Amino acid sequence: MVNTLFLPELREMLANKNEAELREFCSALHPSRIADFMDGLEPAEAWQILSRANLTQRAEIFGYFDRSFQDAIITTQDRDEVAQLIAQIPSDDRVDILEGIDEDIVSDLLSRLPASERRDIMRLSQYPEGTAGSMMATEFVRLREHLSIAEAIKEVGRQSEQYETIYYLYIIDEENHLRGLVSARQLLAGMKKPDTKLSDIMDTALISVDVMDDEADVVDKVARLDLLAIPVVDGERHMVGIITHDDVIDVVREGAHDDALRSVAVEPLEDTYLNTPVLILSWKRGMWLLILFFCALLTAMALQQYEEKLERWAWLIPFIPLIISSGGNSGSQSATLVITALAHGHVSMQQWFEVVVREIIMGLVLGFSLAILGLVTTMVFFPTVPGWYGAMIVPITLVLVVVCGTVTGSMLPLIFKRIGWDPALMSNPFVAGIIDILGIVIYMTVATLFLA
Amino acid sequence: MVNTLFLPELREMLANKNEAELREFCSALHPSRIADFMDGLEPAEAWQILSRANLTQRAEIFGYFDRSFQDAIITTQDRDEVAQLIAQIPSDDRVDILEGIDEDIVSDLLSRLPASERRDIMRLSQYPEGTAGSMMATEFVRLREHLSIAEAIKEVGRQSEQYETIYYLYIIDEENHLRGLVSARQLLAGMKKPDTKLSDIMDTALISVDVMDDEADVVDKVARLDLLAIPVVDGERHMVGIITHDDVIDVVREGAHDDALRSVAVEPLEDTYLNTPVLILSWKRGMWLLILFFCALLTAMALQQYEEKLERWAWLIPFIPLIISSGGNSGSQSATLVITALAHGHVSMQQWFEVVVREIIMGLVLGFSLAILGLVTTMVFFPTVPGWYGAMIVPITLVLVVVCGTVTGSMLPLIFKRIGWDPALMSNPFVAGIIDILGIVIYMTVATLFLA
Repeated sequence: MVNTLFLPELREMLANKNEAELREFCSALHPSRIADFMDGLEPAEAWQILSRANLTQRAEIFGYFDRSFQDAIITTQDRDEVAQLIAQIPSDDRVDILEGIDEDIVSDLLSRLPASERRDIMRLSQYPEGTAGSMMATEFVRLREHLSIAEAIKEVGRQSEQYETIYYLYIIDEENHLRGLVSARQLLAGMKKPDTKLSDIMDTALISVDVMDDEADVVDKVARLDLLAIPVVDGERHMVGIITHDDVIDVVREGAHDDALRSVAVEPLEDTYLNTPVLILSWKRGMWLLILFFCALLTAMALQQYEEKLERWAWLIPFIPLIISSGGNSGSQSATLVITALAHGHVSMQQWFEVVVREIIMGLVLGFSLAILGLVTTMVFFPTVPGWYGAMIVPITLVLVVVCGTVTGSMLPLIFKRIGWDPALMSNPFVAGIIDILGIVIYMTVATLFLA
Repeated sequence: MVNTLFLPELREMLANKNEAELREFCSALHPSRIADFMDGLEPAEAWQILSRANLTQRAEIFGYFDRSFQDAIITTQDRDEVAQLIAQIPSDDRVDILEGIDEDIVSDLLSRLPASERRDIMRLSQYPEGTAGSMMATEFVRLREHLSIAEAIKEVGRQSEQYETIYYLYIIDEENHLRGLVSARQLLAGMKKPDTKLSDIMDTALISVDVMDDEADVVDKVARLDLLAIPVVDGERHMVGIITHDDVIDVVREGAHDDALRSVAVEPLEDTYLNTPVLILSWKRGMWLLILFFCALLTAMALQQYEEKLERWAWLIPFIPLIISSGGNSGSQSATLVITALAHGHVSMQQWFEVVVREIIMGLVLGFSLAILGLVTTMVFFPTVPGWYGAMIVPITLVLVVVCGTVTGSMLPLIFKRIGWDPALMSNPFVAGIIDILGIVIYMTVATLFLA
């Protein structure tokens, strides 16, 4: 959403080279507000304005631009200046930003960075998407355990500008092994006895994650224990980074977004809806839509087997969508209930029998409710249905199809988990597609039994 | 997931009244691990063990129990001791816990609490679910601006035990108006000049939320600005509470969970899947399933109008589920894409025309892809279809139904938002239900044009 009110003024300041006002603009407000006001400028204009801010402010404001605007600036503006900016961006964010940039430009930029920064970027970009390593930053406060509280406070005060968080201070040994944690809270509370050594107050029952752990595990730990940050260690317990609370919120939000799309069989997008080209979006939907279409073709072939019967008993036809949608809807409900319960650790594989029993009971309750309604409405609104005998077909089918839906929908995610697949892969349209075929077979079998 | 390995040992310690070991158990590990180990005990046993911990530890361990176990302890154990525990639980958490407890027990417990705590609980519980007020805690560090950095550090160190976070310190005037913010980082960095007044370093360009703001706004601000906590003010800018990063993560996770259920037409659960009684769960699914059933009945009635034609051209019947599922699936995809884009602020109401154009293009791309596949498979697998002329009916219908699905699916959430409803209310089964009827009408109209 572009806030264009301020753009003419900004352009005028630039045209008049009004240094004082431009510098004032870059520092008077919260960096996020400044970025909002600049939304709508050309990359070159934005870059000229940013050049009036000091490097810290510049990196902060830049961090609030849209990803596509960041890309445009990086690829079009002066390489040396861009490299300077990149050196200033937190390590986890800049790796994400560079991931979307043309490889040649990235290697050009890397060659202009100090060797330590370059190595840091190359190391961080090696971790696969979705691991703790790909979420972590490498800027954190490292202290030695022999320091006193007074010395530690001085050290932290001195270095506080450089770090994403100074609220957790990590105690490491000379080989960079993680030994303990002291919080800024402990430092402040400990000021009464400033000579106390950090080793006496540090917390050694540390919760950490491995660099290759799944991001879902990171989220679980940070959320469950209300942590500000969690240390990341490698296989030898060397401390290699930290993941802060704000990165965890971002992962949870993005994950929820992706799950919502997956649940309707859309591949997650890399950019926003409006910024994703229509053809790419069509592909991300189309690939799954085609697969679902094949499932539906199977349903059509199943129905084709009953074509003669349906011609003879044409009054059965109108109820086909009713029956398969009842099965599909109850199946999607069960699948989503089980998938979310699995994701939150509320259900484990061992409890499958309990789940089946619950779903059969629910299927019966729901099926009989729909069946009663179906019976009444059939009698009232469908005059072509031949008497009581015929009117029993749809209700009986409904009970069977709904139970079939709840059991299939709840068991498929558990089976998927069992064989090591993502339970959420079994997205709702697939559950519905499978139950469609079962629904047709059940319907026609019941009808044949009653009418033949 | 019950970890029962340690339970016999714990029970033995209790039977032998082994005080030293019990006290050791309550303090040696992280409170979350202690709670894990106690999973599976009876409420009375857990309460006896907790009584060996000091009050702070007791409240922390209790905070990691499941909600239903917390309820069981509160309702069955000694009221005075329970009241003591409740006084110790952070203000936002205890309001949530008490919400699930029988009213008589709550008022008994409240009467045993100090007046200030009682007032605090009563005030916090007035805020409607989903507002900033219902998320906030009332424990935060309040300082006056005339304090020096040295005085502030002393004050924070002294009070650090009582507060959820001491990393943001709020500067208020004598009437409790929020004036500014000083971070613990600023305090530590400012120790070189300990006489500096807080008024000289405090940040006054403050981001805050109103007590009645929606929790989604809170999440957006905290996530976008990477905040540790956000102050909550009332209509007169009195500071009434803070919301910390961990509460925001919880809201995002619960929100994602509820949205996933709503998207398949299940009312969000108050407890976990396995802890929710089967009849309540049946009701939370059944109420929507019944509404969807009525939608499906309308589809059946629409189909009934075409019963004679379908009897005559029986080869049309097998394709009915194929056509309505293609429309429903593409409609659900569009609806979810637009709902998630709206929720993340990636699309605004003003951009509806852009959305329609994109969806029509995507509908045509997807529709033609399915149509080509449909044409080929019809010719190969459905021998009863009468020649080229008849074989065109299904493909043409598919293009029209898919475009109809993408346009309906994308516009309905925007229309809902326009008239002030929750766009996510338009959950996928409803979109599918609406498109079912449209699909039937389109199919039969195309067929009649070709065959009549």
